[in-house]
Amino acid sequence: MTETDTVTALREQLCALHAELPRNGLVVWTAGNVSARIPDSDMFLIKPSGLSFDDLTPESMVLCRLDGTVVPGSLGSEFSPSSDTASHAYVLRHRPDVGGVVHTHSPYATAWAARHEPIPCVITGMADEFGGEIPVGRFTTIGDESIGEIIVETLAGHRSRAVLLANHGVFTVGRDARDAVKAAVMCEDAARTVHLARQLGEPVPIEPHHVDALFDRYQNVYGQRARGDH
Amino acid sequence: MTETDTVTALREQLCALHAELPRNGLVVWTAGNVSARIPDSDMFLIKPSGLSFDDLTPESMVLCRLDGTVVPGSLGSEFSPSSDTASHAYVLRHRPDVGGVVHTHSPYATAWAARHEPIPCVITGMADEFGGEIPVGRFTTIGDESIGEIIVETLAGHRSRAVLLANHGVFTVGRDARDAVKAAVMCEDAARTVHLARQLGEPVPIEPHHVDALFDRYQNVYGQRARGDH
Amino acid sequence: MTETDTVTALREQLCALHAELPRNGLVVWTAGNVSARIPDSDMFLIKPSGLSFDDLTPESMVLCRLDGTVVPGSLGSEFSPSSDTASHAYVLRHRPDVGGVVHTHSPYATAWAARHEPIPCVITGMADEFGGEIPVGRFTTIGDESIGEIIVETLAGHRSRAVLLANHGVFTVGRDARDAVKAAVMCEDAARTVHLARQLGEPVPIEPHHVDALFDRYQNVYGQRARGDH
Amino acid sequence: MTETDTVTALREQLCALHAELPRNGLVVWTAGNVSARIPDSDMFLIKPSGLSFDDLTPESMVLCRLDGTVVPGSLGSEFSPSSDTASHAYVLRHRPDVGGVVHTHSPYATAWAARHEPIPCVITGMADEFGGEIPVGRFTTIGDESIGEIIVETLAGHRSRAVLLANHGVFTVGRDARDAVKAAVMCEDAARTVHLARQLGEPVPIEPHHVDALFDRYQNVYGQRARGDH
Repeated sequence: MTETDTVTALREQLCALHAELPRNGLVVWTAGNVSARIPDSDMFLIKPSGLSFDDLTPESMVLCRLDGTVVPGSLGSEFSPSSDTASHAYVLRHRPDVGGVVHTHSPYATAWAARHEPIPCVITGMADEFGGEIPVGRFTTIGDESIGEIIVETLAGHRSRAVLLANHGVFTVGRDARDAVKAAVMCEDAARTVHLARQLGEPVPIEPHHVDALFDRYQNVYGQRARGDH
Repeated sequence: MTETDTVTALREQLCALHAELPRNGLVVWTAGNVSARIPDSDMFLIKPSGLSFDDLTPESMVLCRLDGTVVPGSLGSEFSPSSDTASHAYVLRHRPDVGGVVHTHSPYATAWAARHEPIPCVITGMADEFGGEIPVGRFTTIGDESIGEIIVETLAGHRSRAVLLANHGVFTVGRDARDAVKAAVMCEDAARTVHLARQLGEPVPIEPHHVDALFDRYQNVYGQRARGDH
Repeated sequence: MTETDTVTALREQLCALHAELPRNGLVVWTAGNVSARIPDSDMFLIKPSGLSFDDLTPESMVLCRLDGTVVPGSLGSEFSPSSDTASHAYVLRHRPDVGGVVHTHSPYATAWAARHEPIPCVITGMADEFGGEIPVGRFTTIGDESIGEIIVETLAGHRSRAVLLANHGVFTVGRDARDAVKAAVMCEDAARTVHLARQLGEPVPIEPHHVDALFDRYQNVYGQRARGDH
Repeated sequence: MTETDTVTALREQLCALHAELPRNGLVVWTAGNVSARIPDSDMFLIKPSGLSFDDLTPESMVLCRLDGTVVPGSLGSEFSPSSDTASHAYVLRHRPDVGGVVHTHSPYATAWAARHEPIPCVITGMADEFGGEIPVGRFTTIGDESIGEIIVETLAGHRSRAVLLANHGVFTVGRDARDAVKAAVMCEDAARTVHLARQLGEPVPIEPHHVDALFDRYQNVYGQRARGDH
């Protein structure tokens, strides 16, 4: 099967994005994975299961259909896809606005998740990025698409692109894989800063209308997007 | 527009100084920015908005006037300047002694800021560098020069070159951009050490006359300044 | 003495695995060591004592017999083997299923060990990897095989491949040295996340039948093992 | 002045050892310094004041006499020596067994110092390296040899090679500069692990006779010293 240039380019990007996970302290060893939707198709790319981040290559990214099955004979199909593939697929099927999904066990966020406690929005960086608290999805086991269902159901009531999975870790979504990785980085940053703040007292809340104003500005004005070169 | 050698050299320095922010753990992803005044002019350079630290180049630094507008046709003017530009400009206009401004969301300092709590001066390194506590400026939203006003008003009553912005992060000033980056590094270092000290008990205060003596010695004797080659 | 290709290859692997210890924040200076059993033999390789991680080479790994003595005249025999050699040997003698042993003083795990407190299994990553809590072995001094005895006796009642040694640090075992290093990395990750969770409240337990299901799935399905190319 | 080969070699070593301080997270920016005695002489080398760790070279290390004055016309004499030079000199004059001195503001150790609280010996790694608690020296200001006096007086009653200076930071001594740097690394490691242990409860003490046995073994048996190739 010959791949389109789009798929080839996405393989490169997805491989490079995986390197951001250990670089930003979000994963250890083989934990964590990123998926990227192939635009205008029913396919996506995802990390192979259980490989070291050092050993990932563009060619080892596994091409899957939105039903979670590997595309037979495709590049990377000699590897098993991430054990979270069914849940990535579920999210991509049910959220057409989502172009990428990230999963990590980043330590501060997972600590909140272990207590089943949402991260309160007490810093402007969280308001910018998530528009409020980062919510917690209910506990489930791993290996089928139930995590995907919980992600979709939990994010439905929130502006947040990040969800804490009870006793487990973090999933984030984005308009593309890079945006989802950014959300994973910013989620851990928020989890850490609010953790530190809470250790020595109680953070002062930000009033809801300020959270709204911060979120609106950041989503619509920040960066180089107005010029289309984000 | 042909730039002077001064501006070209400052672009190189400012780009290199931005690399100190992730290196010292002060920022993640695209957060944080540094500005540098062009000596004997009404202009300064500042980070473009929303770019990754990896992608910054000397040429992408945006040249602005002290009123916060981009110099038309200048190198880097294809980028939007940092969304904090108006506040950097405000500080540079109202503090002629300041040659550089830094903004970060460094985690320990931002944790103090989330509690609206100044960092008490209980270690000699803080006395050396800041001459007392690091104060907190009141809450405001982002995008106009109100942060700049709060920085100037808060630092007016302090020897500190760093200010915590309530629920937000840190701004530091310096005689040049490098000095402001140093202040940002030392602010996070102080925020972390005092945080750690407070976690297991109450730090012992340093008597005010000792703080004065430490600050005076460090500002006037330390380093290679006596020989003009700092 | 000419070495077999197997031993030569294991020297390379063992030297490379030692680099994972500082890279993952598990050791400082010369602390920590890894051993690797030579398959189908009564020998194993282990780190030389007191050398910096930077200075380790494949040739400096010390070849020992399972009684803990250095193989005379072998490559690396000019170095003293790790001061923990007798305990590594004890574990390899009494646990034929174990192909590698790792020792570290990784900070979060050692903090639990200083309180003689097992790490409770409150995150799915721990259930996956260790199948339950990480237990504590009783205190002993260093230099003979008594640590080895405690490792074997403590792990006998657990699915965990990691044991906290009271007031001391961590030992992990694995089917080979790489697997034991993975266990050391995951042990510190679990120790840190559960530490963070506990700092701000009480983590929610995972029900035992869920722990069992997670452990079973991870040990039998995860990764590329089904295809034999792990 | 032509330098002996011994001095030239020590310059290289001392410059390389300074790189271990930021690498091990013991210093930020220009804080921290190491000195190395020139054997069989009344001289030592020390870091120049206020230079970045990146900018240090063997040639910029400043050659001083044991009275704390710079050797006129020597290599590096265009730089001011560390502002802690008088205290390094005091220690080297009064402790002929000491060949190197290190000063840092490493964060966990400095947190203990801010509370004027010695680090209790509750992990075997501390017993090995320091033979008991790490003591606190009384507060003083900076710039004369009073810190040196406090170091010598505090360490007199301890096996520890590290001393916490009240509200300030850490000084360590060693038989040479490398040994003192090792002590600085191990001191911060101990400060961190015991800090973490104390955050969630009370560490279990190690009985004094076990501390003695651990210290004795480590000082006399560990490493490659018996063969003279440490």
